Amino acid sequence: MIIVLRPHVTEDELSQVVEHVRQLGLTPHVSRGVTRTIVGCIGDEDRLREVPMLAFPAVETVLPIEKPYKLAAREFAAGNTLVALGTGGGAVGDGAVHVIAGPCSVEGEDMLRRTAEAVKAAGASALRGGAFKPRTSPYSFHGLGPEALDILAEVRAATGLPVVTEVLDTRHVALVAAKADCLQVGARNMQNFALLTEVGDAGKPVLLKRGLSATLEDLLLAAEYILARGNPHVILCERGIRTFERAVRNTLDIGAVPYLKQETHLPVLVDPSHAVGRRDLVPALALAAVAAGADGLLIEVHPDPDHARSDGDQSLRLEDFGELMDRIRAVAGAVGRQVAEAPVPHALAP
Amino acid sequence: MIIVLRPHVTEDELSQVVEHVRQLGLTPHVSRGVTRTIVGCIGDEDRLREVPMLAFPAVETVLPIEKPYKLAAREFAAGNTLVALGTGGGAVGDGAVHVIAGPCSVEGEDMLRRTAEAVKAAGASALRGGAFKPRTSPYSFHGLGPEALDILAEVRAATGLPVVTEVLDTRHVALVAAKADCLQVGARNMQNFALLTEVGDAGKPVLLKRGLSATLEDLLLAAEYILARGNPHVILCERGIRTFERAVRNTLDIGAVPYLKQETHLPVLVDPSHAVGRRDLVPALALAAVAAGADGLLIEVHPDPDHARSDGDQSLRLEDFGELMDRIRAVAGAVGRQVAEAPVPHALAP
Amino acid sequence: MIIVLRPHVTEDELSQVVEHVRQLGLTPHVSRGVTRTIVGCIGDEDRLREVPMLAFPAVETVLPIEKPYKLAAREFAAGNTLVALGTGGGAVGDGAVHVIAGPCSVEGEDMLRRTAEAVKAAGASALRGGAFKPRTSPYSFHGLGPEALDILAEVRAATGLPVVTEVLDTRHVALVAAKADCLQVGARNMQNFALLTEVGDAGKPVLLKRGLSATLEDLLLAAEYILARGNPHVILCERGIRTFERAVRNTLDIGAVPYLKQETHLPVLVDPSHAVGRRDLVPALALAAVAAGADGLLIEVHPDPDHARSDGDQSLRLEDFGELMDRIRAVAGAVGRQVAEAPVPHALAP
Amino acid sequence: MIIVLRPHVTEDELSQVVEHVRQLGLTPHVSRGVTRTIVGCIGDEDRLREVPMLAFPAVETVLPIEKPYKLAAREFAAGNTLVALGTGGGAVGDGAVHVIAGPCSVEGEDMLRRTAEAVKAAGASALRGGAFKPRTSPYSFHGLGPEALDILAEVRAATGLPVVTEVLDTRHVALVAAKADCLQVGARNMQNFALLTEVGDAGKPVLLKRGLSATLEDLLLAAEYILARGNPHVILCERGIRTFERAVRNTLDIGAVPYLKQETHLPVLVDPSHAVGRRDLVPALALAAVAAGADGLLIEVHPDPDHARSDGDQSLRLEDFGELMDRIRAVAGAVGRQVAEAPVPHALAP
Repeated sequence: MIIVLRPHVTEDELSQVVEHVRQLGLTPHVSRGVTRTIVGCIGDEDRLREVPMLAFPAVETVLPIEKPYKLAAREFAAGNTLVALGTGGGAVGDGAVHVIAGPCSVEGEDMLRRTAEAVKAAGASALRGGAFKPRTSPYSFHGLGPEALDILAEVRAATGLPVVTEVLDTRHVALVAAKADCLQVGARNMQNFALLTEVGDAGKPVLLKRGLSATLEDLLLAAEYILARGNPHVILCERGIRTFERAVRNTLDIGAVPYLKQETHLPVLVDPSHAVGRRDLVPALALAAVAAGADGLLIEVHPDPDHARSDGDQSLRLEDFGELMDRIRAVAGAVGRQVAEAPVPHALAP
Repeated sequence: MIIVLRPHVTEDELSQVVEHVRQLGLTPHVSRGVTRTIVGCIGDEDRLREVPMLAFPAVETVLPIEKPYKLAAREFAAGNTLVALGTGGGAVGDGAVHVIAGPCSVEGEDMLRRTAEAVKAAGASALRGGAFKPRTSPYSFHGLGPEALDILAEVRAATGLPVVTEVLDTRHVALVAAKADCLQVGARNMQNFALLTEVGDAGKPVLLKRGLSATLEDLLLAAEYILARGNPHVILCERGIRTFERAVRNTLDIGAVPYLKQETHLPVLVDPSHAVGRRDLVPALALAAVAAGADGLLIEVHPDPDHARSDGDQSLRLEDFGELMDRIRAVAGAVGRQVAEAPVPHALAP
Repeated sequence: MIIVLRPHVTEDELSQVVEHVRQLGLTPHVSRGVTRTIVGCIGDEDRLREVPMLAFPAVETVLPIEKPYKLAAREFAAGNTLVALGTGGGAVGDGAVHVIAGPCSVEGEDMLRRTAEAVKAAGASALRGGAFKPRTSPYSFHGLGPEALDILAEVRAATGLPVVTEVLDTRHVALVAAKADCLQVGARNMQNFALLTEVGDAGKPVLLKRGLSATLEDLLLAAEYILARGNPHVILCERGIRTFERAVRNTLDIGAVPYLKQETHLPVLVDPSHAVGRRDLVPALALAAVAAGADGLLIEVHPDPDHARSDGDQSLRLEDFGELMDRIRAVAGAVGRQVAEAPVPHALAP
Repeated sequence: MIIVLRPHVTEDELSQVVEHVRQLGLTPHVSRGVTRTIVGCIGDEDRLREVPMLAFPAVETVLPIEKPYKLAAREFAAGNTLVALGTGGGAVGDGAVHVIAGPCSVEGEDMLRRTAEAVKAAGASALRGGAFKPRTSPYSFHGLGPEALDILAEVRAATGLPVVTEVLDTRHVALVAAKADCLQVGARNMQNFALLTEVGDAGKPVLLKRGLSATLEDLLLAAEYILARGNPHVILCERGIRTFERAVRNTLDIGAVPYLKQETHLPVLVDPSHAVGRRDLVPALALAAVAAGADGLLIEVHPDPDHARSDGDQSLRLEDFGELMDRIRAVAGAVGRQVAEAPVPHALAP
């Protein structure tokens, strides 16, 4: 950590800061520039992170050097983390393009089974579907709840597709973990630290979506909460951020993909459906994500979007999804990759 | 709701949209402009809100007319909602300036008692103090937890100041509600809908902080979650939003104060400490908030900020707070208001 | 335009609004909803756009129906606008991927010629290079000015590559237009309306970059300034917007590409270099842009980035650019497109 | 400047960086932390600012220590800069509250004279009024141009109020400077560096408005352009920034006021009218600005806002302005200040 002092700081003020750093168990290195004096602090930066150095009037600013996340940093791991949602097939992060597709919410068994069969046939490697839905308005449809979990389990057994579903409440984690192959933490709960801790303890892979105004550092620190509980199976997901632009729902931060791939060993998915909020623009963003190096995609698909109970505007029809998969295969091939095979959910594996 | 059709829409496409609106139980009114045809929909707009009208290729955009929040809207209530944190003294929303002050986190009984006595003497009407702290990093101090709740209860009994403290987890709501006069929902949990529902059911006043990237509509919808559970005692709190500007920590949206006062009957506080993140700039923003019409302030105060375990950089010293209260009194007077008296916590009232 | 009235509006207040609309030469259509009354206005919406309807206390909000841009709107043109930077070869907007490459600033003839030859050999169809550089600090290098224009002209003659260069000042437009094949208006000048008008009159193609906080509507209105002067040859360029995220310099709004391709007939380029500000992340964003449907790319290339006088951090080395072009070709092929051939600058054509 | 190296950097890579710093004429100081090695650079930081250090693969990030602006920095000047718009009366920056009021655009002599007389009577110390108007759409009213300058000069002579008006084009600077007491550079031109240079040379005070997405550092660097031309009379103006919140037009960054007062010696105004875009919310923001320590206000006033040719929605009526001035006086008094007297324009002074 570098402490930058204000111009014209006195010797006394400098001594005070230096002494404080020393008391914290770090070694201060004073260096005088043309207009500013700085104090470099050697030692465990974490001990300084919480210290209110701005409390000293002589301090102008404090520049951290170390990254605040450890387990999530690329340098922590030998290679890419692979997150398998089942056995056989591939694992997210293995270089192939993993496509997780399905409806926004589980509205019934028939619609889910039809969707699952169609996305599996088209090449998806897992099924998404919401049982508990976080909605901006209390008057919106909030999902079928536990009943939807049962439907997901049935369709999972019938089709052999691993299942990803969101969990909203610490009290539901065990319930959801018992039925799903992967627990999703949604954008609005990315900094629900109680929930992060709980899914960290649940022993299942976690799909962690970036918050609407979360920096990439915030996202990696949220992942760190899960990793710190001993659960290494975290998949990050860029799903659009909130900016001044409202022509489409959110701004897909495509630059987050190559940045995160450098910065962390965790796999990175992109959710073009939530980012753009309009079905007709989903394919362009899905292809862009693959070209940019994403480990996979999370895409909303519905057998009858016009009558969907949530997110109908952004859900692809079954046939559109099939067509998009062909285009994804072409772009994946152009960047030396291929679309992943679906694994078999653990409990179903022979 | 107004449905705007694309230019050159055919009669068939128009009929499809009109028919769909009718099936939803609304009355469509077609109106042809120079380049666009629009369909106004008369009836319960909520029935249309969830309907994916963009699924129709003929639809260019959909413009809502009704506000999505009902109970939070000013027109719903006869006058301003008053939220009393105790008996005697005033209620937040009564026109006086209510100042809630205290440390970021409860670090021990002595420091809390000293702070409470000082802020009470200076004119604060309630005490804040964190027992459970949401922190961006898993390695930061997360508060003393249940022990801090006990300390808050003791200091509350000793000083007669009502207590506001944050709750992070649905499983802690009953515990916190048993000890505190007001439950705070923090910025990161503003859209933790499970938590909103739970505090809505807890029967205590709720201080709801605006999320870092929450629009004011989002904030009012979050309040609606609590109101819809039958709990009318919601205080809103502007605490800075995340923007491109990083000179100070967040951007205090001062315009939110007069906007919310028009738009809702709920009281509106401002938290200048979290907005700006630097002690030296807190007073200017506190005074601005009072001048802009805020119902009160939430201010971090610490007896020894240089050694605070969290938020030391932004906490006022006890004497600075006293001085600020004098300036707040002057500005309040200039806009025809006064600083509120502290009420006595309910359980303590004779 | 739809005028939404406040709840509980009186008949008198309604009449006032209706009368005002009528006086403006529009036909008002009153429609009463459950809680709101609205007034639809049929006629030339432009006459209403400037009218301060919020001045009426009865008016809650005003919703425009028509797009404020006309000439830039897709429905205005029969097909895609093609912007040729020379003769032979293709025109931007023709479906091929046009790559405009070169150094941030022209630093001398030798470096420009080397760069031009390398990017031409690699498949670029035009050369970029700054003569006048807008810089955030007055103490930064501001380009070689007129001397650089001469160098650009020489290298253009020697290599046969069309030249794109920025113009900053209305007084320089004629000078720049005399030497370059395409005038660039930079992000910081996107709403320098005097400059837009002047380049509109200059009779040369214009490359218009999106401002850092310009909405896509703002961008299309800036294009409208140029189109309204009778110059139809406008190329739009997405180059990253300013958001809360600072991990990389700006946030490339990849969704702008498919959105603009729907909304306007003008061609759309992407500048990954300025968006991300770091050489190592440029290729991923360049490929994403092609996959998303951009008409081309604007890429910074320098023979010796370590010693570049501006933007060295984000400039590709000559060999890196060659390699990237191979990858661009592959992705272009995967989406049914190819990289464009370079045209010959007009004056040089036989 | 501090150069932070990547973890596990080799001795060779370190030597390369150190050597490069030395070649630039700076003295490198290597310091090894627990996981990162850093290189502090002592010497003229400006020489390093433009150097593309990220070009070295060993470099993770570069942290500037010095502020990039010099003349605008508080430490450069002995005290506050005072900008007098005439003789007698006060100067902006002298501690009093200076209110500059008038219509968005000059629509004729009669309306301007009525407005000027009313705002003078109410206590404004200067008159604003646009002759050249920057408008997002080419089809909007762009001001009366030179005719409006003549009207401003007449009303200035008649009322003795100094005049502030915007200049948009480098070619108009001399013309505007001949008639006005202060040249305004608008938000959209804040980084029109050709214009900044030209108004720097014009020898008149400059009112520099913050760009919609300009950081405060960008604003101070824009001021630096003017200061560097030898013109010390620069007034900064916060007028709202563009954020995700669209409930009101822009987000007034009230924290910018105390931050800038610390960071620079230049005076700071606030324009609540453009920030909020709605007349009814202007007073609350005006009072907040005074409470936060602004040196003055820029307020739009119109004798008949319902028929204004621009910005009618946000213009105060004459009587509303008078009432607001009374409230401003009260808040100014509460923070130990008063409303400034109007000076007499220089040419009119006896």
